[in-house]
Amino acid sequence: MKISAEKTDLMSRINAVLKAVPVRTSFPIMECILVDATQGAITLTANDSEFGIETVLDGTIEEPGMVAIEARIFSDIVRNLPDDRVVITVDSANLAVIRCGESVFNIAGRDAYDFVRLPEVARNRMIRLSQFSLKEIIRQTIFSTADNENNLLMSGEYFEVTGNVLRVISLDGQRISIRKIELKEAYEDAKIVIPGRALNEISKILGGGVDDDVSVYFTDNLVLFEFGDTKVVTRLIDGEYFQVDRMISGDYSTKIKANKRSLQECIERASLLVREGDRRPVIINITEDRMEISIKSALGSMNEKIGVEKEGRDLMIGFNPRFVLDAVRVVDDEEVSIYFTTARAPFIMKNDDESYIYLILPISFNM
Amino acid sequence: MKISAEKTDLMSRINAVLKAVPVRTSFPIMECILVDATQGAITLTANDSEFGIETVLDGTIEEPGMVAIEARIFSDIVRNLPDDRVVITVDSANLAVIRCGESVFNIAGRDAYDFVRLPEVARNRMIRLSQFSLKEIIRQTIFSTADNENNLLMSGEYFEVTGNVLRVISLDGQRISIRKIELKEAYEDAKIVIPGRALNEISKILGGGVDDDVSVYFTDNLVLFEFGDTKVVTRLIDGEYFQVDRMISGDYSTKIKANKRSLQECIERASLLVREGDRRPVIINITEDRMEISIKSALGSMNEKIGVEKEGRDLMIGFNPRFVLDAVRVVDDEEVSIYFTTARAPFIMKNDDESYIYLILPISFNM
Repeated sequence: MKISAEKTDLMSRINAVLKAVPVRTSFPIMECILVDATQGAITLTANDSEFGIETVLDGTIEEPGMVAIEARIFSDIVRNLPDDRVVITVDSANLAVIRCGESVFNIAGRDAYDFVRLPEVARNRMIRLSQFSLKEIIRQTIFSTADNENNLLMSGEYFEVTGNVLRVISLDGQRISIRKIELKEAYEDAKIVIPGRALNEISKILGGGVDDDVSVYFTDNLVLFEFGDTKVVTRLIDGEYFQVDRMISGDYSTKIKANKRSLQECIERASLLVREGDRRPVIINITEDRMEISIKSALGSMNEKIGVEKEGRDLMIGFNPRFVLDAVRVVDDEEVSIYFTTARAPFIMKNDDESYIYLILPISFNM
Repeated sequence: MKISAEKTDLMSRINAVLKAVPVRTSFPIMECILVDATQGAITLTANDSEFGIETVLDGTIEEPGMVAIEARIFSDIVRNLPDDRVVITVDSANLAVIRCGESVFNIAGRDAYDFVRLPEVARNRMIRLSQFSLKEIIRQTIFSTADNENNLLMSGEYFEVTGNVLRVISLDGQRISIRKIELKEAYEDAKIVIPGRALNEISKILGGGVDDDVSVYFTDNLVLFEFGDTKVVTRLIDGEYFQVDRMISGDYSTKIKANKRSLQECIERASLLVREGDRRPVIINITEDRMEISIKSALGSMNEKIGVEKEGRDLMIGFNPRFVLDAVRVVDDEEVSIYFTTARAPFIMKNDDESYIYLILPISFNM
């Protein structure tokens, strides 16, 4: 094999696939990046068997061939090369020679045939949305997936397509996050559960452009995200997802509307007094047109009043400040509305068209 | 006690003393910041017994008094307060109330009398230099101090004043760093060894202005750095420092002059093939007017040629790339000169007026 490419292009493509390289594994081949110049284009692939990324490198093939190169040393070397053309040659013993300027590196590669390639994903079921939307939806729901070995479904996000509406749902047993968007076209109805870890990595690679689309193809057990010259494939989580709609009630006895930033900063201050692992609740006391937020812990106590618009009954309720913060932080509106029923029932933060709904269980407390 | 100050001022003063708060200790009082408003000014002090910082807060004393407040929670709270006036009151039971805007925090403080204050340092022996110079000198020598429990002297830096010349020296058994500067005035000769850790922290707090001075007062066992409204006191390391001058020879049989950036980047690339704990040398082979840098390790091999101006004999010598990088990185000149005698003798990087001298031991190697 003999290929060449600009250092900056090669670096950006290595960085793109690097997210799928496992940190430590007992299979050295999985710690490699496959460089394949046999099919008329140069592709770089990394695959940790659950999650894989393939991308196309803009370069020149002087002699077709392929090789697997240990990802960490490959990326370290390329990052430190001068900004110049990089030439990579590989001989029949998989010895890779990387040349750039006056620098010459010799690295033992591995046999490309040992590399597990990305599985093929059939392209008959799909949806398309902007990279921006997908990135936002992931950011606004990913925090309430659970790292729960006993219930794999909780570690994923539920993607539900109904006509031209996509709903993405995550839940961890103490809260539920739901985001809803309209797609530009209608698609066949679909329900899949995508691993949270893969979504997290995908959101980091997505360019986030409003005008750049991502196509999502899926089968019963695989999903392929295709955008630009990059493909990401991951396995789906098997099983029937939770029936969340029956948990979301439209009833409420108290509603408040608060400035998002004031509410967020106030709860951030209150949470300073909660140490890791402490289940101490923050308490909000809603009376008339104001709300008092308070907390008492071993570290001290804090209280603060913020102005709100209130509807309905007075209420005092306790909650885990992190859960409310996770939701408030990702809301882009200036005002947020929260709907309560009783101090023991879940409360809901949502906007009028319900493009987002965050349900949170309260914590009981003693005064 | 009742004092008030702007949030930004309070935060900056807390950050300044925070460097002297030990991370974990069995003495909770040491994890506190002393707030003292008994002497007509508000001072904040932190002291981990080896190293202490005191600074003056620009604020208003409404009622004199003092208290010790746990540093971590104090700084967390103040950082998260709105940008407004902060009022701190403390009652006779050391309960501290921190108010800002609509926020009220109650934190149990500790008795200020338990706090170990900074020792007084007599002001008869001293030198004065710019904050910029002190910061630079520390940066250019601190890397060759050793974390050596068996030889405390190696963990410090030797400050030697001779008339109007200050020399700062550090060494770790495999290399020596020497920086020399001229002071604006002449002082009484002095020789002290200052702990490396304290110098490291001081260099982070120093503003680094060319026109802002720092006064360094010292006794037989203490040193006080005074700059702006801040004082840093640390113990000196006791003992006779190493005689380094006899190790620095003016003789050489090979001299090279290279572009600093090319040399640095080339050795950085070579060092990619050296894993942590590996004593594999980088080898330079100096012939005619060029130099080849190469390395062979379990990860692969690398070689690169760079142009140099050469004087004297051809030479091949091995060295630890980190040692050369530490020195090359802190040199501000565009060109660096290195003087060699044999492949087994230390080599020296220095400039013509010897304002810096870096001596490094070579590593023997097999071809």
